Amino acid sequence: MSIDLEKIRAFFANDRFAANAGILIDSVTEDEVQCSMPVTPEHLNAGGTVQGGAIFTLADLAFAVHSNLPLVRGENVGITTGQSNSISYLAAARGKRLIARSTCLSRGRNICVFRVEVHDDQGNFIADMRGNGFTKAAR
Amino acid sequence: MSIDLEKIRAFFANDRFAANAGILIDSVTEDEVQCSMPVTPEHLNAGGTVQGGAIFTLADLAFAVHSNLPLVRGENVGITTGQSNSISYLAAARGKRLIARSTCLSRGRNICVFRVEVHDDQGNFIADMRGNGFTKAAR
Amino acid sequence: MSIDLEKIRAFFANDRFAANAGILIDSVTEDEVQCSMPVTPEHLNAGGTVQGGAIFTLADLAFAVHSNLPLVRGENVGITTGQSNSISYLAAARGKRLIARSTCLSRGRNICVFRVEVHDDQGNFIADMRGNGFTKAAR
Amino acid sequence: MSIDLEKIRAFFANDRFAANAGILIDSVTEDEVQCSMPVTPEHLNAGGTVQGGAIFTLADLAFAVHSNLPLVRGENVGITTGQSNSISYLAAARGKRLIARSTCLSRGRNICVFRVEVHDDQGNFIADMRGNGFTKAAR
Repeated sequence: MSIDLEKIRAFFANDRFAANAGILIDSVTEDEVQCSMPVTPEHLNAGGTVQGGAIFTLADLAFAVHSNLPLVRGENVGITTGQSNSISYLAAARGKRLIARSTCLSRGRNICVFRVEVHDDQGNFIADMRGNGFTKAAR
Repeated sequence: MSIDLEKIRAFFANDRFAANAGILIDSVTEDEVQCSMPVTPEHLNAGGTVQGGAIFTLADLAFAVHSNLPLVRGENVGITTGQSNSISYLAAARGKRLIARSTCLSRGRNICVFRVEVHDDQGNFIADMRGNGFTKAAR
Repeated sequence: MSIDLEKIRAFFANDRFAANAGILIDSVTEDEVQCSMPVTPEHLNAGGTVQGGAIFTLADLAFAVHSNLPLVRGENVGITTGQSNSISYLAAARGKRLIARSTCLSRGRNICVFRVEVHDDQGNFIADMRGNGFTKAAR
Repeated sequence: MSIDLEKIRAFFANDRFAANAGILIDSVTEDEVQCSMPVTPEHLNAGGTVQGGAIFTLADLAFAVHSNLPLVRGENVGITTGQSNSISYLAAARGKRLIARSTCLSRGRNICVFRVEVHDDQGNFIADMRGNGFTKAAR
């Protein structure tokens, strides 16, 4: 099926927390969703590096977009929400932008698993996240 | 040792991402750190519930404060940063405020593990997070 | 409802991997399942401490028993299987026996979350596991 | 540096729990460690599928071997042990053998992160594990 990027962006514009963090949906295919986030002073923690919650939120949006593609394009399914997530932080981010790319590891009628890799714009591998989702039945 | 809450708050005021999310450090003892976050339209996701990244950021700040107490009060240790975290979402948040409370599961010279439970202000158990930290050697 | 410990043990006797590891189901209530495992040379890793997989298997059985109580006592539900698990290792095990105790964090029609704490028989907190389960619809 | 597979196998022959599960170290390079495990009635759970703890133990051995390569070949480092692990189960295993392959996501002096993918011998992706390790200082 075709993927309407503007329709997806409009749907997720309602994700105020991600939008306030400056996170953008860059590209969407069946196989990969890419989101990115600028690194500004507003994204830092007390140690002066990018806050873990900011990196998690970026990865989580890629997971949310990818796992909800069937819903957004009108299939008869409910919303998919994260049930559990795990993240490992691999290196301190450098540069001006973080990029998250998702991969689908499995998808069934009710549960799904996605992996999201986060790199900085200098090519460093910053974090690896796995999201386990649950899809509600359609109303 | 005594715990100077204002000193701790001043240190973590530099965590801009948590501050922008409205997260406050409510109380600190050796055994438990409590942080809280208001639930406003700015904390919601596209499904109209509190964004998973917002809940994670709240829990992560409690973990960061608790794990860095030795540093903040002047012990000769480096900063403790999250190495890996896992979170399970248990229920959709209701009410106007989320409260995170941390417990130390283990602490060694280099590595530590904390658990953070997040409830809403109606008493519902919203999320359970475990954070694994690494403490750098003092400079 | 009443809990028939022998019926539960008979059901899980078919878990050959746990049985071969010497894991026993000690006690079962609605609120807590306790399983235990002896520490013998057969449970050690190359470093001479209890293998992480053995500790995980012990915790996982407590999770499996607790999450499948409705099925075992005859309710009209399918089997609950682990979807994702996370474990943190807190201390090297001492003594002759490890004890796992589970707590239910949430349970819905389809998904559930349990926490399992593992101690050794000297009271040391050895590992903390969280299991996220999925319950299939009844046939 | 060269990798002596027999030396590695001799070192990990002391991992009795993995050996008892029939786990073999198939191949080792700097970039990937492959371990495999037969699927026999001794590896099943009460539901008749491969026990989650067996899959975890297989993945954990690949992680242990990969993360301890420097130690086994004689570098001046201590043993690396798992600090925390997370695993997602993707599909029920089919066929007669499970194969685990590890990748290094990051490695520093003290902490490291590895990913292990588990497939069955029919090519199905069965489980995805991430292991976070801690390397003790050399004695």
